[in-house]
Amino acid sequence: MSGIITFTTDFGVGSPYVAAMKGVALGICPTARLIDITHGVPPQDVPTGAMTLADACFCFPKGTVHVAVVDPGVGTERSIIAAEIDGHFFVLPDNGLLSLIASRTPPTRIVRVENREFWREEISNTFHGRDIMAPVAAHLAAGVELERLGPNADAIEMLDWPEPEVSKGWIVGQVLVVDSFGNCITNVEHTHWDQAQAGRDAPTVTCNGHAVKSCVRTYGEASPGDCIALFGSNGRLEIAIVNGDAAGTLQIGVGAEVVVQT
Amino acid sequence: MSGIITFTTDFGVGSPYVAAMKGVALGICPTARLIDITHGVPPQDVPTGAMTLADACFCFPKGTVHVAVVDPGVGTERSIIAAEIDGHFFVLPDNGLLSLIASRTPPTRIVRVENREFWREEISNTFHGRDIMAPVAAHLAAGVELERLGPNADAIEMLDWPEPEVSKGWIVGQVLVVDSFGNCITNVEHTHWDQAQAGRDAPTVTCNGHAVKSCVRTYGEASPGDCIALFGSNGRLEIAIVNGDAAGTLQIGVGAEVVVQT
Amino acid sequence: MSGIITFTTDFGVGSPYVAAMKGVALGICPTARLIDITHGVPPQDVPTGAMTLADACFCFPKGTVHVAVVDPGVGTERSIIAAEIDGHFFVLPDNGLLSLIASRTPPTRIVRVENREFWREEISNTFHGRDIMAPVAAHLAAGVELERLGPNADAIEMLDWPEPEVSKGWIVGQVLVVDSFGNCITNVEHTHWDQAQAGRDAPTVTCNGHAVKSCVRTYGEASPGDCIALFGSNGRLEIAIVNGDAAGTLQIGVGAEVVVQT
Repeated sequence: MSGIITFTTDFGVGSPYVAAMKGVALGICPTARLIDITHGVPPQDVPTGAMTLADACFCFPKGTVHVAVVDPGVGTERSIIAAEIDGHFFVLPDNGLLSLIASRTPPTRIVRVENREFWREEISNTFHGRDIMAPVAAHLAAGVELERLGPNADAIEMLDWPEPEVSKGWIVGQVLVVDSFGNCITNVEHTHWDQAQAGRDAPTVTCNGHAVKSCVRTYGEASPGDCIALFGSNGRLEIAIVNGDAAGTLQIGVGAEVVVQT
Repeated sequence: MSGIITFTTDFGVGSPYVAAMKGVALGICPTARLIDITHGVPPQDVPTGAMTLADACFCFPKGTVHVAVVDPGVGTERSIIAAEIDGHFFVLPDNGLLSLIASRTPPTRIVRVENREFWREEISNTFHGRDIMAPVAAHLAAGVELERLGPNADAIEMLDWPEPEVSKGWIVGQVLVVDSFGNCITNVEHTHWDQAQAGRDAPTVTCNGHAVKSCVRTYGEASPGDCIALFGSNGRLEIAIVNGDAAGTLQIGVGAEVVVQT
Repeated sequence: MSGIITFTTDFGVGSPYVAAMKGVALGICPTARLIDITHGVPPQDVPTGAMTLADACFCFPKGTVHVAVVDPGVGTERSIIAAEIDGHFFVLPDNGLLSLIASRTPPTRIVRVENREFWREEISNTFHGRDIMAPVAAHLAAGVELERLGPNADAIEMLDWPEPEVSKGWIVGQVLVVDSFGNCITNVEHTHWDQAQAGRDAPTVTCNGHAVKSCVRTYGEASPGDCIALFGSNGRLEIAIVNGDAAGTLQIGVGAEVVVQT
């Protein structure tokens, strides 16, 4: 174990609910290093939570425990699961939050978190992040074996992840998330590009009907104000305005169509 | 001591002033673990700061030092106090910030922070968080005894905390705070409910004139869009819209009246 | 080395990009203590980033490594530099981010970060914070010598910092930044005041044409709602409304003129 626990939630940036989880975790594993991934996942938005977690988690060392709480079903019969994937550990509700990671890298093991020995004594109906997930993550970080947390899970909830349509010379994808710069991050990845491109060099890209001026490798290749397409640091095609706010200026939101014609 | 220092302020989420406090603290106690409770207390809003601190602090292990800076009187004659309550330590201005905690759990000891030996060398007129409270907290975390910080405080500033009116079959309370989901958290607690209920089962709840559809134990018992009342994770009655924003939709703000009729 | 790494960026408060940098850093230096200065620098606003870093960095113990990423030129030929200044270490793009600090305290040594041995293996075109600056900072924190990072830098990019005009009895300065309280922080410092004042006591101050009611030492000397001028905790003249929002109420933005007449 690396001794690191990360936190990804929809509690809102600056929410004191996060501190409650951290306090509980430190009570169990006083040496844990606690790192926020983000608390800015839009409320109840499991797909954005899944993507955010997938993009950030493998930057951490192996042996890190990742807790994610985007949990509209808290207090219902949805399970909480714990998983090991490529040496990383995950504790989260079984509502699809893990599904993007699990669909790309086969989990070594997944269990249902049912052993109350590793929970907080008193369990609220509305805050399992504090009462179940944080203590379970802290026990994992402190060296408790995954299999002690509960029985094996045969299957977990998988999201229907929107895949782009790809054909020779064409890709039709969509915007998955808008980041804090207003960059529109799409579901088009290098592999789709390669499949579609068929040897042509200068594709045209449109997003929400707006034609992008050029496809570049980095922001600095274009001029301030240019609308560009480029592959971002997570390997996804982004629509951006150099030193500007593409989402705001072009009124592009999550789900907007992006068309690549090679 | 747990070696943990928490921070609760009204500096604004992302404010660099917080880092100044942390830098000073680490200069004095290099092994301290620094955890943010929140920096999103509305500016100068001592009651919200008091409630936020009260809700989060006891999730941390005993021996934790909690610094809170909501300090409109900085540079005037208001005192800074340090207190021990149930094995936790607090460093904050004497303006009511500690009063909710102190009214529920009797302090073991409270001192006025007057011994400049544990302050920063140069004291500004406007930032005692950095110049007095952070260094004092770091000295406490490093093992300095509370009584060395200054003389005993005979009495501290207490806020008039709005208590609900409770009679047989009725509770009239108010909204204390709106969280990042738009949930409206009230001053009605389980004890008030028990006092009022007198054996009837299905109370009606209205907030700001809006009738709540049902009282539930958890969000998952109602349908998305339903306006519900439930006891939240801190034991307070909340008015919420499932997967929605009650405060925004129903235009409920802090101070709005909530009426429970059993 | 103190083992502390600080982070200052324009990624946006709550951005998951910050966590990617932290994950990479912890993979290299597992014992590093990671502290956020702010991620709320306005996008691509190098001057505000420079001032924020300058105001906070020296609150930390010597031997701290400060990473700052406000990097509109990422992927172009701008250098990344690492510097030692007064026992502190800095890793940042050479675009003026270091210039305010470097103009006040002469750097001991500055190098261009060119030795790929201390970078991440794969370098993206758009996120050198994660791929170069975070790993380099972690290596410094872990004890790698500055000179191993690359060749000496002869000169670095300096910003034209707006200096106030000062004459006997007059100062004409400007607002540099607006903080989360709405306080307007100017480029007028104690030294300018001293130069101009020439023995008179009660200067008049106007900002954006609004006359300030009084010059005070601390907020508590004035009444709620008063518009005041005072020297803030970083030694800069601030225009503020007591318990209010000067920037919003008086429509003062960055660049607004402030005139002091003694």
